[in-house]
Amino acid sequence: MDIQYPLELIGTFVFAISGALAVKDREHDLFGAGFTGFITAIGGGSLRDVLLGSYPLVWIGDVYFLYAIFAGIIMAFIFPALTKLRKTMFLFDTLGIAFFTVLGVEKALSLGVRVEIAAIMGMFSAVMGGVIRDTLTNEIPILFRKEVYASACLAGAVLYLLLREFGLARDYNLLISLMVIIAIRLIAVKYKLSLPRLD
Amino acid sequence: MDIQYPLELIGTFVFAISGALAVKDREHDLFGAGFTGFITAIGGGSLRDVLLGSYPLVWIGDVYFLYAIFAGIIMAFIFPALTKLRKTMFLFDTLGIAFFTVLGVEKALSLGVRVEIAAIMGMFSAVMGGVIRDTLTNEIPILFRKEVYASACLAGAVLYLLLREFGLARDYNLLISLMVIIAIRLIAVKYKLSLPRLD
Amino acid sequence: MDIQYPLELIGTFVFAISGALAVKDREHDLFGAGFTGFITAIGGGSLRDVLLGSYPLVWIGDVYFLYAIFAGIIMAFIFPALTKLRKTMFLFDTLGIAFFTVLGVEKALSLGVRVEIAAIMGMFSAVMGGVIRDTLTNEIPILFRKEVYASACLAGAVLYLLLREFGLARDYNLLISLMVIIAIRLIAVKYKLSLPRLD
Repeated sequence: MDIQYPLELIGTFVFAISGALAVKDREHDLFGAGFTGFITAIGGGSLRDVLLGSYPLVWIGDVYFLYAIFAGIIMAFIFPALTKLRKTMFLFDTLGIAFFTVLGVEKALSLGVRVEIAAIMGMFSAVMGGVIRDTLTNEIPILFRKEVYASACLAGAVLYLLLREFGLARDYNLLISLMVIIAIRLIAVKYKLSLPRLD
Repeated sequence: MDIQYPLELIGTFVFAISGALAVKDREHDLFGAGFTGFITAIGGGSLRDVLLGSYPLVWIGDVYFLYAIFAGIIMAFIFPALTKLRKTMFLFDTLGIAFFTVLGVEKALSLGVRVEIAAIMGMFSAVMGGVIRDTLTNEIPILFRKEVYASACLAGAVLYLLLREFGLARDYNLLISLMVIIAIRLIAVKYKLSLPRLD
Repeated sequence: MDIQYPLELIGTFVFAISGALAVKDREHDLFGAGFTGFITAIGGGSLRDVLLGSYPLVWIGDVYFLYAIFAGIIMAFIFPALTKLRKTMFLFDTLGIAFFTVLGVEKALSLGVRVEIAAIMGMFSAVMGGVIRDTLTNEIPILFRKEVYASACLAGAVLYLLLREFGLARDYNLLISLMVIIAIRLIAVKYKLSLPRLD
């Protein structure tokens, strides 16, 4: 069985939850929260596909992605207390970016682009939904706030491409790369690691 | 005669006016105002067409849309006092979003997408020009400020799709859906109705 | 030899430098600076190509553009003191927008669009990378701050199209239009010229 498809649906579901809950503190109504969840869930993958000219976009061509998004939004509405579980939310978001990075790399490779482009597309798939969400809600994008966020995705994308080059079987590669992204992120947050600055 | 084409031109014209006048209070020069009017007028439809992969975009393929935009911008320059007519501006914007919703739904359906996608594309066509405008000018997007705004568009889009399913003739459907969007918006503003929040 | 290709690479390189250095004062790490440089360099051209439906996007189809971007980002990292050379940075940015305007007009014309659309696409190519950069970093877009910025690009684009209409040889036209954009910008900044406002 192909594990990509369920992973991608889960990632979409998770992003919809985190997007809808992101507006929790603000003066948004339910509709605004749902809209934000929707944009967060589709943003990264849509940008990737539009840049690569790959039509139809995933969520337009396959209705199960819409269902995953709606399920995530409804989940956020029913259990808004989820936001108080900071660790749970953080874990969801970390899982989401890890899935989307690796699946974004694979999607780009399947369209025949160079590995450098595939790495960038993996990262874009993972973080751009959140960047668009933050831009719309007038926040400093997450990318610029949490130092080891997009860089963990980029590192995982490069690792996936290297292991693939070395001939590692795809399912192992997928699993290892996913776990490395998650590990980098968890360690960076736990030990408050950050990249050096420009000055 | 097909009423879609003139309605779409009028909607574009109206959005260009409201976009150019939106920067009125700020320190923008004429060029910035014109640029903002342009982006507001093309934003929603362009996003819809790019997401659906429908080329050429309407304003690129048909020069009359450019003329409608330029006419709207010039109108805003000649009669900047229009902004003081709050009710007039509000009416223009309400007409614009109603037109764009229904026409966006029809455009999406003509490209063969599912009804759920068509409803979302109708709403996107209507509100995303304003969202992009507000994002560029560092405002909280209109979507998050006026509670019953995008939701009125989504309701109108769903109504159009339901009446179509029931076999209502298209021109009546167009008219009814337009009027319902306008009515929801007018009533919501008059009675300060809003959707519940998440808390 | 075709001069367009090296000019486009230089413009991309220059935009990557100015983008990466734009975040200098802020609390961004190296990754955030590099990401911003990347987005600034690809933003305008990508938007132009996506709106026109021209695939693959320049930086996706030709790896030398990626190299130019990475070189620019590394340059910004090695010589961050460049930012203190305000005049140097200003000159770089002015060269960048002049190159991108003219090359954007030519690209659009090569795709068979009307001259009005070509002029708009020239301006978009030049300024939208910076607009996206400013939007992501929560700044008022450069477009709305420096009065004679996008308007210099639009003027240069229109000049190029007029001279082309009059049959001027392409290389002379390229050179003249470039110089006029640069001259307008330099003169406007030196004499603090600005366009009238709407009030």
